Amino acid sequence: MIADKMKSFVAGSSAIRAMFEEGKKMAAIYGAENVYDFSLGNPSLEPPAAVKEAVLKVLEETSPNELHGYPSNGGFEDVRLAIAQQQNRLHGTNYNEENIIMTVGAAAGLNIILKAILNPGDEVIVFAPFFGEYASYVANYDGVLVTVSPDIQTFQPNMDELEQKITKNTKALIINTPNNPTGVIYSEETLKTLSEILTKKEKEIGHPIYLISDEPYRELFYGDFKIPFVPDFYPNTIIAYSFSKSLSLPGERIGYVTIHSEADGFEELVSAMTVANRISGFVNAPTLWQKVVPYVMDTHVDVSVYKKNRDDLYAILQELGYPCVLGDGAFYLFPQSLIPDDKAFCNAAKEFRLLIVPGSSFGCPGHFRMAYCVDNATIHNAKESLKLLKEKYSK
Amino acid sequence: MIADKMKSFVAGSSAIRAMFEEGKKMAAIYGAENVYDFSLGNPSLEPPAAVKEAVLKVLEETSPNELHGYPSNGGFEDVRLAIAQQQNRLHGTNYNEENIIMTVGAAAGLNIILKAILNPGDEVIVFAPFFGEYASYVANYDGVLVTVSPDIQTFQPNMDELEQKITKNTKALIINTPNNPTGVIYSEETLKTLSEILTKKEKEIGHPIYLISDEPYRELFYGDFKIPFVPDFYPNTIIAYSFSKSLSLPGERIGYVTIHSEADGFEELVSAMTVANRISGFVNAPTLWQKVVPYVMDTHVDVSVYKKNRDDLYAILQELGYPCVLGDGAFYLFPQSLIPDDKAFCNAAKEFRLLIVPGSSFGCPGHFRMAYCVDNATIHNAKESLKLLKEKYSK
Repeated sequence: MIADKMKSFVAGSSAIRAMFEEGKKMAAIYGAENVYDFSLGNPSLEPPAAVKEAVLKVLEETSPNELHGYPSNGGFEDVRLAIAQQQNRLHGTNYNEENIIMTVGAAAGLNIILKAILNPGDEVIVFAPFFGEYASYVANYDGVLVTVSPDIQTFQPNMDELEQKITKNTKALIINTPNNPTGVIYSEETLKTLSEILTKKEKEIGHPIYLISDEPYRELFYGDFKIPFVPDFYPNTIIAYSFSKSLSLPGERIGYVTIHSEADGFEELVSAMTVANRISGFVNAPTLWQKVVPYVMDTHVDVSVYKKNRDDLYAILQELGYPCVLGDGAFYLFPQSLIPDDKAFCNAAKEFRLLIVPGSSFGCPGHFRMAYCVDNATIHNAKESLKLLKEKYSK
Repeated sequence: MIADKMKSFVAGSSAIRAMFEEGKKMAAIYGAENVYDFSLGNPSLEPPAAVKEAVLKVLEETSPNELHGYPSNGGFEDVRLAIAQQQNRLHGTNYNEENIIMTVGAAAGLNIILKAILNPGDEVIVFAPFFGEYASYVANYDGVLVTVSPDIQTFQPNMDELEQKITKNTKALIINTPNNPTGVIYSEETLKTLSEILTKKEKEIGHPIYLISDEPYRELFYGDFKIPFVPDFYPNTIIAYSFSKSLSLPGERIGYVTIHSEADGFEELVSAMTVANRISGFVNAPTLWQKVVPYVMDTHVDVSVYKKNRDDLYAILQELGYPCVLGDGAFYLFPQSLIPDDKAFCNAAKEFRLLIVPGSSFGCPGHFRMAYCVDNATIHNAKESLKLLKEKYSK
């Protein structure tokens, strides 16, 4: 009854989501406090108080027909301009509303970017480990996902392999920094090298390689440094952003795409993505949330809470002997599984009511992902289960 | 720079949307009251007061993490169950939450249905005139749109031609009643005949033909009758519904899909559409609006206002000599253009600051669409322009 392509999608349906559904069932059986659910990046922090205030404000002050009616497919001009001006303030760019398209979250953003640029057979490169949904998004437009193998010592991009894997069919590279699932952040040096490779290869192959920067974790970093602004290093950059994590609003599906002014074919890209927003069925980002954005775009959740979670979880993993790279951002750690078969390992973890996601879901077997956007108590309560899991494989 | 497929989409981009953008520009130049914009189905009525009350209620009473966090991809179970029970009350069905998938409006609903069922080359039949976006949605999944030519006397479906156009590649038929752009409603008799044809043809070709019923205008009808419930006539029915029109919330993107329990491959369809919701980048319908639905799903805007608009506009068209079928629903009339070239006709209308959409955009040249979801004054103020337009072609 269903499409052939969908059969494999349904069969290989997101392990993360399956775990999320299983977690809800286990919580009903054992009580939520006895299930240590690190499966989904569902923020534990409440949205900042400013969010509710802004919702109430726009409900009071905006005419209902404007607030809830159809905007342009790219979004309200005033909202897009406000974001453009914020970017100009932060990054010294020269954006206006044309550079910004409001989207149904970053997932929609990535989809309209890929729909706009991919011909069937075009290659999109990702660095393993990567957010598994990229594979679906690229397949949606009959693109070919090309993976660069992980450097499991650092989870920084493997530049030599990147260079080898760029072909005349390469249309784009997706990066995600701070990274899901590793938490690692790319330094300025890394972005500089990346840009040099892409610029050189663009000349060789004779057409643009778009750098798609997926940035839902842009504000979530733990340390006294700045996250580099990708277009500063490479002009052919398109950013997909979401307020899901910075404002703890993942269910509301509100984000935007930034098309850098110096990107090749800027006007054509903007038109194509705006049309893609409409014909893909998104039509436009939810309007109430669009109108809320200008009031809350400069605020974010208290990241010190996530930092403490990360520090506590990392200390426990170290103490118990789980090898793990310490990432400085997002809300994930990506330790090694204690047996090569990470799926079996994550299945075994369920015995101890511990929900963790196999690295295979991110193109990086032999690891598992823990989303630490949970109550701090969950991390400490999970220690015993992590210990028992370790002991199971230490006989 | 952009995908080949997108080039034609961008070039032939929605005439309705182009008109909408042009209307905004003309309003800025001539003043909104001097532009008679009948281009877009953007409801003129404010949402019922219950909508804002419900938003405030869910903001007060729901924990922010539940309200704004990730739900299941199909939507909150309690919301889906509430809708299922409403359908059971109204239609005597036996639905539960499995029958309902919350979507980012009906546009997303149609896309996840088509993504779930279409293999490349599968045929989807529509009756002209039809909502132009169907062509894009079918093309998104490499389906082939097959159009049945219009009966311009009644705008009821042409059954003989339907029967001829069903082939072994036919996977689905999309209907839209009350209809955009004609306003016509299919009677029980029509649906019965349709069902007989589809049932006979299913046996001949040996696989299901899904009837996709696009129902954003379900509550907008003007008369003392009931809109037939399509699954009562044909079990292989999947409905895409939206609150955009019934509650005047088109910008918020909230709707749902109903998969009838007796549809072939029910479980498989539900799984595929749920996965399609995720991998297409919708992820889930906006959660605040999901939670609002149970409080407002039994209410709707005051349709007597649209009825008066329709009656007044129809009377003006009759008086001026524009041949037009009187539809009993939605908020559109679809008169004949006074020259065969409807695009030239709609272009000429702009001289008189009259924004109307060519029938070609709906697969039915020689006509034009007027969306009468406007202030009643706009209709009466437009009379002079309609008269001048008529005179232009009566020399």
